[in-house]
Amino acid sequence: MSLIIQKFGGTSVADLERIRNVAKRVAKTYDQGNDVVVILSAMAGVTDDLIDLASQVSNSPSKRELDVLLSTGEQTTAALLAITLTDMNYPALSLLGHQAKVVTDCTFGDARIIEIGTEYIKDLLEKRNILVVAGFQGCDIKGNITTLGRGGSDTTAVAIASALKADLCEIYTDVDGIYSADPNICEKARKIDKISYDEMLNMASLGAKVLQIRSVGFAKKYNVPVHVRSSFSEEEGTMVVSEDAGMESLIVSAVTHDKDQARITLKRVQDQPGVAAKIFLPIAEAGIIVDMIIQNTRAQGQTDLTFTVPKKDFQAAMEIERKVANEIGAVDVLGDKNIAKVSVVGVGMKNHSGVASIMFNTLSRENINIIMISTSEIRISCAIEEKYTELAVRVLHTAFGLDEED
Amino acid sequence: MSLIIQKFGGTSVADLERIRNVAKRVAKTYDQGNDVVVILSAMAGVTDDLIDLASQVSNSPSKRELDVLLSTGEQTTAALLAITLTDMNYPALSLLGHQAKVVTDCTFGDARIIEIGTEYIKDLLEKRNILVVAGFQGCDIKGNITTLGRGGSDTTAVAIASALKADLCEIYTDVDGIYSADPNICEKARKIDKISYDEMLNMASLGAKVLQIRSVGFAKKYNVPVHVRSSFSEEEGTMVVSEDAGMESLIVSAVTHDKDQARITLKRVQDQPGVAAKIFLPIAEAGIIVDMIIQNTRAQGQTDLTFTVPKKDFQAAMEIERKVANEIGAVDVLGDKNIAKVSVVGVGMKNHSGVASIMFNTLSRENINIIMISTSEIRISCAIEEKYTELAVRVLHTAFGLDEED
Repeated sequence: MSLIIQKFGGTSVADLERIRNVAKRVAKTYDQGNDVVVILSAMAGVTDDLIDLASQVSNSPSKRELDVLLSTGEQTTAALLAITLTDMNYPALSLLGHQAKVVTDCTFGDARIIEIGTEYIKDLLEKRNILVVAGFQGCDIKGNITTLGRGGSDTTAVAIASALKADLCEIYTDVDGIYSADPNICEKARKIDKISYDEMLNMASLGAKVLQIRSVGFAKKYNVPVHVRSSFSEEEGTMVVSEDAGMESLIVSAVTHDKDQARITLKRVQDQPGVAAKIFLPIAEAGIIVDMIIQNTRAQGQTDLTFTVPKKDFQAAMEIERKVANEIGAVDVLGDKNIAKVSVVGVGMKNHSGVASIMFNTLSRENINIIMISTSEIRISCAIEEKYTELAVRVLHTAFGLDEED
Repeated sequence: MSLIIQKFGGTSVADLERIRNVAKRVAKTYDQGNDVVVILSAMAGVTDDLIDLASQVSNSPSKRELDVLLSTGEQTTAALLAITLTDMNYPALSLLGHQAKVVTDCTFGDARIIEIGTEYIKDLLEKRNILVVAGFQGCDIKGNITTLGRGGSDTTAVAIASALKADLCEIYTDVDGIYSADPNICEKARKIDKISYDEMLNMASLGAKVLQIRSVGFAKKYNVPVHVRSSFSEEEGTMVVSEDAGMESLIVSAVTHDKDQARITLKRVQDQPGVAAKIFLPIAEAGIIVDMIIQNTRAQGQTDLTFTVPKKDFQAAMEIERKVANEIGAVDVLGDKNIAKVSVVGVGMKNHSGVASIMFNTLSRENINIIMISTSEIRISCAIEEKYTELAVRVLHTAFGLDEED
């Protein structure tokens, strides 16, 4: 007998028919003798509808109250699943964030989980109840309702799995696992059977569509085995686990891409202590997230400094940097919205040299110019012209031996 | 400076425009220097929609889980009003049932309030917050969400008013007060300025459309002055207060009617101890509420026993009584669905004789036959043929001097 956490995303509970299917799956797991805690998202689209409703009464709705409003979405699905399960004669109980003792800090809209009180849940599980927990929501120590940010139900699931020391955390979603590349771009992309937490963390764009990146960090920290799989099939999905020897047979596990990139270059910056801070502090204060940063050495104590920001923040960042350039005496500010980032990710590359050169050669053979390069221990990313994105993903996927065999 | 409780019903918060109007009214009361606690219902129709949703997944939804589902309705309006008020720069905070410490028994779907913890609310009011409490909901001592039954937000309002010793409890609704008769039937019906708790309790059909009858009992017990008024006008409505001398100038305050009545007669019942119990126990066990009961003495130790039930329960009650008649040796069971009840209500009749004879004479002058009579200290009710209902209400309204002067 195991303790299994099953999390179902918005598309898996999008209507009553699908909620019935979720109930059947939960019941089956329970009938096999397992203890089951279910974590639910709101019905697909509901959270957006509620945000829209709030925006009709206020341009900047009170964050505390927005969380009260948004948390009704998961409350609704949790109640409906519990009703469905009890109708099938299973002893199901819904628990809202505060009832499941999901205690968070008080950052409304993007709260972090501080702790999960397990005594009550354990007691209910011991009595063989199926617990249906509303995901995405918690409460702060004063009892205010909080929410955990987009995709927060994943984090609820992993956090509860870790607090209860569950044997497995299953994330049911509308895709059947993590792929070695976006199948919409690369038709030879393969489903990955097993991937490490670190790889998931390094393939944000590819992974984040499937699993909230914060939940992966949580899973890594507490070593919670996560099984990402489809709620519409019985197929095995992708296991996200801690790194093990078997994983290193492939040097590269996946090729990811991100078109949401824009580049800004400050020309001829004085290469002095404190200059970088002057460039990036106002960007950070504007809430803009910088991704890649490259500094090229030039002659005469001057340097070119290039970085990337999300496309939506490009105009704002350009305006900020034009002012900064004035202050610090940079010669010019250049911008380019037509770039993309392609990355290869794999724990295997830690023990293999030559990954970078294969990547550069492969792109070069297709006449794809590399604009920027950044690396981590298990990832190499290149900024390229946006129009080459799909081509780059496909040739890299082939070059690293990832193509699905027919 | 006063502490004022303002409760707004479903039609008053039916859409965002109306919620904005509610916010303006609350803000005005606050700006006058008052402390304000607002109690909200769900948007009109939402509770029914949620019940319908639950019934699509289960014929008899888990009562615990149905309460979790239904409580989202008031949670939504409370959050939306708090967002609207904060957008207008008022310090508003929403509180759900468990946050407002509305502690109930654990009768899901029809819970009774046990106590209301006031410390937290008082602290928030002292800091000049406007509190927006989700009505209709509470939690039991284990932290389960409960609801208070149809119209439960009225009871939330009165209970919070009594716990906080508020100066006034305003019930905003879609009518402008309590009338001396149903204005749809009796065009000369007058709005009543002031009425006693007991009168309200005795004019269920007329009053219950406006105010949950349980909340009136609560208001009476704790002597909470209740002002029933329209959220769509500035007009004064009806004050529901404890009986005072001024009230007795009118002998009768209102004429009410109830068409939801059916009559059942058991002929020639043996007049023995225990027989009445045999007749009414199975009716009660079937959850059928008996209203009037009349026993006529006959000769030879036999009696005719007549009672009324709601029309919807007529068939079920007839079947039960046919069996009972067999067991106790009654000669026949007769039924009649075409009856109605008209009542005159007034605290003044305690000190006036002759009310009954005026009532009987008035009906008799119109050739309206009285089928049954029942009385309380401040009410006289007659069952009549249903087709005479409107006529009876109008002539009684005139006979007791209630007609609005032109």
